[in-house]
Amino acid sequence: MKLPEKVTVKEVGPRDGLQNEKAVVATAEKVAWVNALSDTGLTYIEAGSFVRPEWIPQLADTGAVLEKIRRKPGVTYAALVPNVRGLERALNAGVDEVSVFMSASEGHNLRNINKTIAETYPVLEKVVKEAKNAGKSVRGYISTVIACPYDGPVSPKQVKEVAGRLFAMGVDEISLGDTIGAGVPTDVERLLGELLKDFHARQLAMHFHDTRGTALANVVKSLEMGITVFDSAAGGLGGCPYAKGAAGNVATEDLLYLFAQMGIETGVDLGRIIQAAQQIEKTIGRPLASHQMEIYRMAGGA
Amino acid sequence: MKLPEKVTVKEVGPRDGLQNEKAVVATAEKVAWVNALSDTGLTYIEAGSFVRPEWIPQLADTGAVLEKIRRKPGVTYAALVPNVRGLERALNAGVDEVSVFMSASEGHNLRNINKTIAETYPVLEKVVKEAKNAGKSVRGYISTVIACPYDGPVSPKQVKEVAGRLFAMGVDEISLGDTIGAGVPTDVERLLGELLKDFHARQLAMHFHDTRGTALANVVKSLEMGITVFDSAAGGLGGCPYAKGAAGNVATEDLLYLFAQMGIETGVDLGRIIQAAQQIEKTIGRPLASHQMEIYRMAGGA
Repeated sequence: MKLPEKVTVKEVGPRDGLQNEKAVVATAEKVAWVNALSDTGLTYIEAGSFVRPEWIPQLADTGAVLEKIRRKPGVTYAALVPNVRGLERALNAGVDEVSVFMSASEGHNLRNINKTIAETYPVLEKVVKEAKNAGKSVRGYISTVIACPYDGPVSPKQVKEVAGRLFAMGVDEISLGDTIGAGVPTDVERLLGELLKDFHARQLAMHFHDTRGTALANVVKSLEMGITVFDSAAGGLGGCPYAKGAAGNVATEDLLYLFAQMGIETGVDLGRIIQAAQQIEKTIGRPLASHQMEIYRMAGGA
Repeated sequence: MKLPEKVTVKEVGPRDGLQNEKAVVATAEKVAWVNALSDTGLTYIEAGSFVRPEWIPQLADTGAVLEKIRRKPGVTYAALVPNVRGLERALNAGVDEVSVFMSASEGHNLRNINKTIAETYPVLEKVVKEAKNAGKSVRGYISTVIACPYDGPVSPKQVKEVAGRLFAMGVDEISLGDTIGAGVPTDVERLLGELLKDFHARQLAMHFHDTRGTALANVVKSLEMGITVFDSAAGGLGGCPYAKGAAGNVATEDLLYLFAQMGIETGVDLGRIIQAAQQIEKTIGRPLASHQMEIYRMAGGA
């Protein structure tokens, strides 16, 4: 297997995790959690989102979180931004990097941001331009890159079309999200096979959910195709809180085990990530069930 | 990716699953379960074990199970056999295929069968010879092919040595077990890379536990290396019953999803496997948590 020597793990728990939790976590608890994550060796933490507070009350205090955390040198603190108003709030809070987001499928884009794909581009273009003017790097999220809960399978060409538009706006990196966790390695191969015709592997990140247990298999195929940036959430946070064990984001600690055993460097401390996962588990008050957390429990750790 | 068109899924839930459950399941429930599994399209079901009943009381009634099940044409009903006395009982019960077992590591072999590896060979040799004389095919299990809970990492050469001895005895197929579920695809590549120097891919099966969430990634790497036989247990049965969510065998239904999405034929009905998993879940009285079962629950299925 041809594998990279080193990869970057981008922690999205405070945003993609907490936005899908039933519990609204207090600002002080979020700050404590982001501070704990900052001490694990992670170099990138997505701290929240500046969408309208009434849409996602769980993240309404992202500005306060960004202002109150202890900024660790070498760590990028990012946040999602839906439009220029959100960008203003993010810049005021001192965000390091902004992320714009849209879907590769019309159905999901319409339901998620209430706009068609064509209507979304000019909104994001304005955000990217102003973020760049403010000296910020910009990440672009594309959701439903393999399948859409409304439209079914999504073609790699459609994903490439959206990615091309985002890169043309000046986006620095695109994170490709298998939002419903339906993908398998052949899907990843087709998707990346198409995108790598036009873009470099270093411009792309993969964002897998472990809904069907295929996330690590998809990560391995992505590694083999040259991808070196992966999103994950400590504790596998972000599953549907109404169904026990329903997996959300691939768990950071499960990803770290895989990389460590494959001899791939991350710079992140697995034990500290498990501690951080236990911290947020206590805060949200529901059991998290990543594989590494279960092993830690079985070993009598907690 | 170079992938096989068709694979065989061998269901080990009634043996490797139930032997690790706290609950002792009544014979009638086991019979009903094996009968349900027989109607899913599976062609191979490991129905139990003829080890001494006091060692594994959960499987003490394997003879009765084999005698009472409805034998579906085209399905092979197998059972584990530790020695010639167990073989006699298995033959009397009308087993179709017998499985012998040992470990690739001394530590696990000693604790599991109370013999050194060298002491184990003559015992198995006798079983294989007599089983063959009785017209039965023989499967050989090798445990701890990647890592041993007592000895640590296990070298591919050591696994190949054991496999060579078993094949020399006349074993038809060897199932390579990552007993503690520690393996990652690079381990699988090293292991199979070594074994495929001497043996054909069609002589080998892979048996993964999903303890660390790497089972499907390991299956994909095995597929890419030509393996076409995989062991699994409906419901992911067989995890430590004392720890919620602690994964046992890779779940048959999760494996089936992977294969279906990758365009690989199995002949097994995913929906019926989920039904069978729900049946045994009710019987053992603890929640099973395969990914496909959770999705079914979330969809309001049960």
